[in-house]
Amino acid sequence: MTEKPRIAVVLSGCGVNDGSEIHEAVLTLLAIDRNGAQYQCFAPNIAQRDVIDHLRGQAMAEQRNVLVESARIARGNIRDLADFDAHDFAGLVFPGGFGAAKNLVSFAADGPDCTVEPNVAKAIHAMQGQGKPVGALCIAPAILAKVLGKGEMTIGNDKGTAAALEAMGAKHRDAARGEVVVDPVLRIVTTPCYMYDSAISQIADGADNLVKALLALIRT
Amino acid sequence: MTEKPRIAVVLSGCGVNDGSEIHEAVLTLLAIDRNGAQYQCFAPNIAQRDVIDHLRGQAMAEQRNVLVESARIARGNIRDLADFDAHDFAGLVFPGGFGAAKNLVSFAADGPDCTVEPNVAKAIHAMQGQGKPVGALCIAPAILAKVLGKGEMTIGNDKGTAAALEAMGAKHRDAARGEVVVDPVLRIVTTPCYMYDSAISQIADGADNLVKALLALIRT
Repeated sequence: MTEKPRIAVVLSGCGVNDGSEIHEAVLTLLAIDRNGAQYQCFAPNIAQRDVIDHLRGQAMAEQRNVLVESARIARGNIRDLADFDAHDFAGLVFPGGFGAAKNLVSFAADGPDCTVEPNVAKAIHAMQGQGKPVGALCIAPAILAKVLGKGEMTIGNDKGTAAALEAMGAKHRDAARGEVVVDPVLRIVTTPCYMYDSAISQIADGADNLVKALLALIRT
Repeated sequence: MTEKPRIAVVLSGCGVNDGSEIHEAVLTLLAIDRNGAQYQCFAPNIAQRDVIDHLRGQAMAEQRNVLVESARIARGNIRDLADFDAHDFAGLVFPGGFGAAKNLVSFAADGPDCTVEPNVAKAIHAMQGQGKPVGALCIAPAILAKVLGKGEMTIGNDKGTAAALEAMGAKHRDAARGEVVVDPVLRIVTTPCYMYDSAISQIADGADNLVKALLALIRT
């Protein structure tokens, strides 16, 4: 029996407003398992940009760590992104949530002039250098746009966000709920998920379609 | 078109070691949506018993609120369990995680002599009084055992936990991964989920089977 392909999943905290969107993260892990691959979660060992009270939608006077909070989604089975080695993985996926755009890049605050968490850029470049595919859900394609400065991708159909991605060098393509945009040259796959108001079953479909597209690239 | 059955889901925080087990919670919401019902999340507005660093498995010197942290899983769409009205719902579900046994009851610390969060007991009794079904995943059947003092249920096959449930008046039945135990008289449904070392797809199957059993009771 051949070993299952290993997919690294990069989390950015635990909660849509200051970390990884939890449904997208969990349903990405489910899609990887259901489609015959295996996952390993990673997160950068850095302070969160902010902590948001998800009940009231307001900032809290707290400090939390991205790796420590991401460990909640990973049930403790998570590694520091600084230790990521592209040789160990066949694919890399970034779930969405504001944490992707606050903690992995500063896109939520700075737009196209954002900075990138160094280990995030390093991981993406290492995968690209080995011709291995990278996936991104929801707002996370903004990370790929900034790091690669090119590539065909989708964040759904929001004109402002699409224009910001194009300002970073990406080519934006509108996509509907659950739809995946594949850039066969750069080997990147993206899907809108909660960039649209969606039912959780639509998020499951989007994550499943994205993982299927990623695995198809791995096999070619 | 008849309205979709409404299912209340009671969360206990956000993370397996001090709150709701995130995979079980998300996959319960997915199962409700996929099986043609709709969900509303609730949580008690109380302090968590503790805050655990899920990376290191150690207690942190922090205080967090069960309702505020549960809101992360619910994307902010959550209500105080004190406002739960059984007339508005066809079924009630408790995902697992240590939070269920720390914050909803004190079972993790006190065993069969545990106390129950008053709004949890009130919600279960109100559903029982209206003949409406209640589901519980993983360790959460301990809540039903304490509140009802009877009922056929499962937490998998762990002898110590099963004995503790029986000490509270329940009748324990062993069940395998994904299997659901139904008590047709009390109208309660239970499944082991992460009481076993499981793949996330097995948790999805368990949650889906439990929701299907709950909806079957709702329709009869």
